[in-house]
Amino acid sequence: MKSLPLAKVYQLIEPGPVVLLATARGGRNNVMTPKVMTPNVMTMSWHMMVEFEPPLIACVVSGADYSFAALKATRECVIAIPARKLLRQVVAVGNSTGAEIDKFAAFGLTPRPAKKVRAPLIAECFANLECRVADTRLVNRYNLFILEVVQAWIDPRQKNPKTLHHRGFGRFAVDGRVITTGSKMR
Amino acid sequence: MKSLPLAKVYQLIEPGPVVLLATARGGRNNVMTPKVMTPNVMTMSWHMMVEFEPPLIACVVSGADYSFAALKATRECVIAIPARKLLRQVVAVGNSTGAEIDKFAAFGLTPRPAKKVRAPLIAECFANLECRVADTRLVNRYNLFILEVVQAWIDPRQKNPKTLHHRGFGRFAVDGRVITTGSKMR
Repeated sequence: MKSLPLAKVYQLIEPGPVVLLATARGGRNNVMTPKVMTPNVMTMSWHMMVEFEPPLIACVVSGADYSFAALKATRECVIAIPARKLLRQVVAVGNSTGAEIDKFAAFGLTPRPAKKVRAPLIAECFANLECRVADTRLVNRYNLFILEVVQAWIDPRQKNPKTLHHRGFGRFAVDGRVITTGSKMR
Repeated sequence: MKSLPLAKVYQLIEPGPVVLLATARGGRNNVMTPKVMTPNVMTMSWHMMVEFEPPLIACVVSGADYSFAALKATRECVIAIPARKLLRQVVAVGNSTGAEIDKFAAFGLTPRPAKKVRAPLIAECFANLECRVADTRLVNRYNLFILEVVQAWIDPRQKNPKTLHHRGFGRFAVDGRVITTGSKMR
């Protein structure tokens, strides 16, 4: 993984790809064993950019999701962006709950230590964004978190990854052609 | 245009397409002429779903945009979704300001009366969502509006429209293949 300038993060999120949201929270803890962090991951499509730099991302995480409690308690997460080849895992992660299984192990995803947060990076994803919760004012009403991206990574071995865009009920549009216009729009 | 059930709105927004945001605000007004509503339109990529039904959409509109003042003042807008064939207009709208030109006239877009808001529908777009501002708590800090979709329209003549996904600086990924998986994820 190679560090990505934070000013470029919006280029990954603005197109609206399905992402994976990774969290970690303290597991069982007693006097005989050190505290173990249990990683979890969910599939997410309700997210958007809020600011270019420092990059802010808003996301909505259902209160029914196991990840909601972890995000609220730890105030840290990783947004990992899967390419098309991870479709099977994206669907499997979205159809299961971390309350019952270890999704990383069950679906062949590899957690890697992040640099600035305790939530794990996902090795198979082409981009990983380490995030801290920056604003919780709309959490109670809408489950809406404002995240600040504090470290971004890109996998230079994955060239021109095509992302997935969820249309509901497991229908996904895959990126097709990329068109470059003369626009200077950020 | 055909009415679309509000419960299906998320299927249009969740994939992350570039959209057009239409507003209308009172123009010049004196004792001799009736109040004229001036329509305006901007290109937007910072938006996400917040709730299924009634559908809530969050969006970020730069305070530097002419549309920001209109949205804040009127608390109404239309989110219109352009298919790939409108790429030229999407870019032109994004590179100009309603403070200087009538973008509808300049770029060949047709404003049509909406049913529940004063902002116009855009006839060329395959979907139009009439919205009212539902929450302004994060407007001052992030220019983030929570909108409620109160009426949705779809153009049945546009079959399987491919949408545009902005990657920054006028690069767009166009929808390619659509894959249907066994997932039940909403």
